Amino acid sequence: MSAALLEALQQLLGASHVQSGEHAAPQLTDKQGSYVGRVVAIVHPADTEQVAAVVRLCVAHEAPIVVQGGNTGLMGAATPDSSGTAVLLLLDRLNCVRAVDTDNDTFTVEAGCILQNLQDVARNADRLFPLSLGAEGSCTIGGNLGTNAGGTAVLRYGNTRELTLGLEVVTAEGEIWHGLRGLRKDNTGYDLRDLYIGSEGTLGIITAATLKLFPLPKAQATAFLAFESLDQAVSFLSHARAGFGASLTAFELLTADCLALLREQFPDGPQPFSKAAQPWFALLELSDNHSESHARQSFEEVLGAAFERDLLADALIAESLAQSEALWLLRENMSDAQKRAGRNMKHDISVPISRVVEFVAHTDALLQKHFPGVRNFTFGHLGDGNLHYNVAHPLDSTVEAHMANYAALSALVHDCAHAFGGSISAEHGIGQRKLQMLTHYKSPVELDLMRRIKQALDPKNLLNPGKVLMVGEQGEAP
Amino acid sequence: MSAALLEALQQLLGASHVQSGEHAAPQLTDKQGSYVGRVVAIVHPADTEQVAAVVRLCVAHEAPIVVQGGNTGLMGAATPDSSGTAVLLLLDRLNCVRAVDTDNDTFTVEAGCILQNLQDVARNADRLFPLSLGAEGSCTIGGNLGTNAGGTAVLRYGNTRELTLGLEVVTAEGEIWHGLRGLRKDNTGYDLRDLYIGSEGTLGIITAATLKLFPLPKAQATAFLAFESLDQAVSFLSHARAGFGASLTAFELLTADCLALLREQFPDGPQPFSKAAQPWFALLELSDNHSESHARQSFEEVLGAAFERDLLADALIAESLAQSEALWLLRENMSDAQKRAGRNMKHDISVPISRVVEFVAHTDALLQKHFPGVRNFTFGHLGDGNLHYNVAHPLDSTVEAHMANYAALSALVHDCAHAFGGSISAEHGIGQRKLQMLTHYKSPVELDLMRRIKQALDPKNLLNPGKVLMVGEQGEAP
Repeated sequence: MSAALLEALQQLLGASHVQSGEHAAPQLTDKQGSYVGRVVAIVHPADTEQVAAVVRLCVAHEAPIVVQGGNTGLMGAATPDSSGTAVLLLLDRLNCVRAVDTDNDTFTVEAGCILQNLQDVARNADRLFPLSLGAEGSCTIGGNLGTNAGGTAVLRYGNTRELTLGLEVVTAEGEIWHGLRGLRKDNTGYDLRDLYIGSEGTLGIITAATLKLFPLPKAQATAFLAFESLDQAVSFLSHARAGFGASLTAFELLTADCLALLREQFPDGPQPFSKAAQPWFALLELSDNHSESHARQSFEEVLGAAFERDLLADALIAESLAQSEALWLLRENMSDAQKRAGRNMKHDISVPISRVVEFVAHTDALLQKHFPGVRNFTFGHLGDGNLHYNVAHPLDSTVEAHMANYAALSALVHDCAHAFGGSISAEHGIGQRKLQMLTHYKSPVELDLMRRIKQALDPKNLLNPGKVLMVGEQGEAP
Repeated sequence: MSAALLEALQQLLGASHVQSGEHAAPQLTDKQGSYVGRVVAIVHPADTEQVAAVVRLCVAHEAPIVVQGGNTGLMGAATPDSSGTAVLLLLDRLNCVRAVDTDNDTFTVEAGCILQNLQDVARNADRLFPLSLGAEGSCTIGGNLGTNAGGTAVLRYGNTRELTLGLEVVTAEGEIWHGLRGLRKDNTGYDLRDLYIGSEGTLGIITAATLKLFPLPKAQATAFLAFESLDQAVSFLSHARAGFGASLTAFELLTADCLALLREQFPDGPQPFSKAAQPWFALLELSDNHSESHARQSFEEVLGAAFERDLLADALIAESLAQSEALWLLRENMSDAQKRAGRNMKHDISVPISRVVEFVAHTDALLQKHFPGVRNFTFGHLGDGNLHYNVAHPLDSTVEAHMANYAALSALVHDCAHAFGGSISAEHGIGQRKLQMLTHYKSPVELDLMRRIKQALDPKNLLNPGKVLMVGEQGEAP
């Protein structure tokens, strides 16, 4: 069966666009090395019609289909299982920008385009494509769409779903839905677009999208802020939203411990507030449609009022692009700083912004009670209520001993997020890593609705099976 | 069967909350008087649990369920058919604001709340709930959610879908999905929320929602602009988006003929540019987070640059709130002005903004060729590509003769919108009025995907049958 499918795929795409599963291709291991898959073949179709033809072949051979972008996901969503029955679909040859429409402020791009390249295409057209995240140099827009990627500009521009107007999708039957509309208003039936976005390749295969563009800001201004408490930071955020409005494009939180870790791991890096007397910090970015001086004036007004109202302990305003980039480097280095310091437990959670203070106090205390000495490195997108609530080993213990507590500690953190009305996966998705968790935290009603949709759009369960949702007999399990 | 259901409903809700279908209730006729329905009963459940219980009763009796908000829709979506088998569900008793969370910038409201009341609740909390449309004094948020309502602020804040974070929904089986999340990031499974929004009561019954709030602008400024051509207006819009950024909150187009009609029907109304020498006009609104003077300065900069670049023929800036309200009155009176002048054919279409000029030129010309003398009254939300492309009778003919051409003339307009990559229903939805049209213009692949979703979430086809989508044997028809 596999041999026949392999041969059919080679005939369809040409042998040079089909890698046999015998090879240990890097695409078969996920970014973090947690999952290793096996496949019949890795295929590189040339265009949407070939994607559809591959799907039809797989359906005929009852072979599961896994689609992968830049292989930068953290949940193992793009790694096939180890059965060796699947076909891994790479869309790297679907990498055209089909159209840039500046009057409509949209562009239509293929799924295999690298995110950073799209940012550049937009900038060359004097527009902003605001999706921005750590992996932007290698992740693809197809992966961003499949996972409804978030990143640092969600506060102002929304996540990938909110940036998308139209989609082209290959269905589970290998048909093509031509939904590439560039319309901001279109109330003609059910919202298929938002259903496919974030479905992690389990409902259909996104091959192209029409995405929103925005005016390029005339100026950007960055400040690094210090707060006496998380409470003060949340109150400041509310003040800043009112004062800056839509000009507030990022509000990234860091603790003093995060800053100390950065200093330790990157001793030559930027060192704001060298005597870090405050416990909480935030990187604030303002995007201005007028001018540098106007941005500076806004800063002075809003930060000045914040000092007067005791919403802010200290502020460092970048005086140049270089200073601004140095401040952003702090945020961008956080993942690497943690990596250098040894493995830790990452939790990509969100809670309503109004409950962040309670959540952190409660969860920090509970952790110390049950896992004494663990160290919190909490940072993230406070403007979206999205924290990377990461927990490192106690200094008097080892990484290994700490990681042995993974299941219990993570369950505690996720239970708290859930209890505070939050999400167990704010931006990273479910994939295979959080598959059991989804079943645990979602209500039976919601799981049932999702399973019905999966059954309706992929009745043979061939699209990325074993990801997002347990279905069929699997689904009976608790 | 009906008598048994009626009795069961009376027992469940109390007789005073059940109107028998014998009465000719105003809720059985749609706003425009196009559709008249008959029902077993009109019911007013007290809360979500009662809504669920009503649904379970209807399922047991195989009775269709139609939900209605303020009965202000234009597509007949909330009017039952004439079979007399349905139950009409009114959510007027679900009218609580359950929570206002200013730190999270959200509120949680029940489906029966009147939109204008919600705007007031937000304003009293020093926040803006930006959804705004003509019927806001009587439409309900449940109806807005069911139809994904648009309105005048979509340009800046998006339509109802983009304003919603969480939902509470009663399913077709009478179960409750508790999805009232106040999260800006939550990538845990399929997007049920956006599927229910805009489904016009055919997939589930929305009983409450958690909605986004925004900072109240510190100042608003209004200008009435004149353009030499539609092309110039589109170019100006692009310039204004770049110059104002997110401060640009409305851009409403009107033709000189619309202005003349307003003058004729409202001789005591505002009369900007009394010698209306230009063919196109627009109402522009700016919302500023700083101050009145700052808003004024922005206006002068951006409009000044537009004059220099020949993107604008004339501009009238409101000097006071009263003047601003007078200018808005022009836009708001358009529907009434047309009503007073006699029936006309309304088309709620959208096309990509970059194709608006072509669409209007092409369609205007084609209309004159096939229906000589008809008069265009084109206005609407140019910032969203959404035009109310309305067509009145030739002056040498009668309204009746004109309306006799409805099918052919509307088909011509919708064919053009479709050919230009547009939508046949930008903000009004499908209901029963555009049911056949949806089947005509959507591809078989898209119709099939929608039908599968309908089948998955409402397998017995009891939720608002005969609306949005033809299913079952109906669906076989062309």
